[in-house]
Amino acid sequence: MASTKVSNRASGETETGDPSKGMITLASVRDALIRQEDTIVFSLIERARFPHNAPVYDPSFLGSGQSLVEFFVRESESLHAKAGRYQNPEEVPFFPDDLPLPLVPPCDYPEVLHPTSASVSVCEAIWNMYLNDLLPLITVKGDDGNYASTAAADLACLQALSRRIHYGKFVAEVKFRDAPQDYTPAIRTKDGDALMKLLTFERVEQMVKKRVEKKAMVFGQDVTLQDKGNKVEFTDGEIKCKVDPSVVCRLYDEWVMPMTKLVEVEYLLRRLD
Amino acid sequence: MASTKVSNRASGETETGDPSKGMITLASVRDALIRQEDTIVFSLIERARFPHNAPVYDPSFLGSGQSLVEFFVRESESLHAKAGRYQNPEEVPFFPDDLPLPLVPPCDYPEVLHPTSASVSVCEAIWNMYLNDLLPLITVKGDDGNYASTAAADLACLQALSRRIHYGKFVAEVKFRDAPQDYTPAIRTKDGDALMKLLTFERVEQMVKKRVEKKAMVFGQDVTLQDKGNKVEFTDGEIKCKVDPSVVCRLYDEWVMPMTKLVEVEYLLRRLD
Repeated sequence: MASTKVSNRASGETETGDPSKGMITLASVRDALIRQEDTIVFSLIERARFPHNAPVYDPSFLGSGQSLVEFFVRESESLHAKAGRYQNPEEVPFFPDDLPLPLVPPCDYPEVLHPTSASVSVCEAIWNMYLNDLLPLITVKGDDGNYASTAAADLACLQALSRRIHYGKFVAEVKFRDAPQDYTPAIRTKDGDALMKLLTFERVEQMVKKRVEKKAMVFGQDVTLQDKGNKVEFTDGEIKCKVDPSVVCRLYDEWVMPMTKLVEVEYLLRRLD
Repeated sequence: MASTKVSNRASGETETGDPSKGMITLASVRDALIRQEDTIVFSLIERARFPHNAPVYDPSFLGSGQSLVEFFVRESESLHAKAGRYQNPEEVPFFPDDLPLPLVPPCDYPEVLHPTSASVSVCEAIWNMYLNDLLPLITVKGDDGNYASTAAADLACLQALSRRIHYGKFVAEVKFRDAPQDYTPAIRTKDGDALMKLLTFERVEQMVKKRVEKKAMVFGQDVTLQDKGNKVEFTDGEIKCKVDPSVVCRLYDEWVMPMTKLVEVEYLLRRLD
């Protein structure tokens, strides 16, 4: 069973190499995913500072047919491309067409991913989920006029989600390298369902959901000096969080983890091309 | 003494009006400052994900004589200006010259600040402090090639610091409205030192430093599921934080609070023009 290997690797019992040399390990991939949870929770808390600010998403607002958020993300991705962001295979843009060339010298990121698989993107699904499903859950209704800051906060959320979900490529690669014999038959027969089953670990997913919920509680609390000493105590329902922890749990349950596995399946289906 | 009034207002005993109508209160100003501490700590933690990445700050790196961070911040401010960011008097750009006009309709921010005083800016001092003093304290030496993400993280830190420090204008305005008789003589005689004394409350500053240090501990901890229940316990030195809490304390002590008071003094000196 692949699951046993996963938990062995995750607990650091075996290593396949040094990530800086392109030899990723399940432990290094898991650490990156855990660190990215913090970034996602921070970005959601920061977005929740502003109300929904509907004009940001209204295609008629700017008079150009493009919503302010789309304009803002497109222009930002163009700037980030000039600064070399998309040389890093961890970064997947929402609007990849016509991005300018980097002004910075090429960076030698280790070639970890299979070249054909590297192009997998679920950005459109992330974009729609974020704007239609997630935003109404983390913001209050209203309009405070801070549209630029709102769009900038959206950009941070979208980039954090894109990076996390497309990290599924690295997850898939390390799982494949770890047990090619487990995945090869399903890849050969293009059996996406079988791959999805091989990539699903209920127990791990439960843990991730619990952890991100807890992060939303810890990072979203109002830190005051009334607490005694250096001890922070809180219980469910007692503290007011800046983003509802159950929404962050649901974000991972309904969207982040399923989309990550979709990326993993799509990646593996091309892995032997 | 102005200090008594400050602490009365801060504890909500008196109110001068509704912030949405331009009637700010010491309580609303204090709440905004406290919330901005979270944003600053989050942004520092996110910057600390990357090593120092010296090429980002090297004026010869792009071949244009402009460092990547300056290029990135200038271009970002241009985009943010188009989205209307600087219509909000809370936002002060680092490179205000030649910013494009907003593409969004004008937003009616309440006119809280005195028109002559609104232009006060200490952005150059913030820029130099951030790059020369703070960055080496929150990053490890090294170069991982993630220059675009590094510059984007710098932008977030710089904007959060600029907003927090220039919020001193609102602090000064509300303090002046609260006790014009305390400040008017020193304003008339252009006595900056006397104003600085009137604006300094040691006890409040000690509290702020303690609180931001604690926020760095709470938000910068590794949240795991090993803890019992919903209780998070930590003690000094026992947890590893993503940004050294004592550095965040020092940031406020040596730079944020002194620069805020400088903004307050500069604001007040023009308040009766």
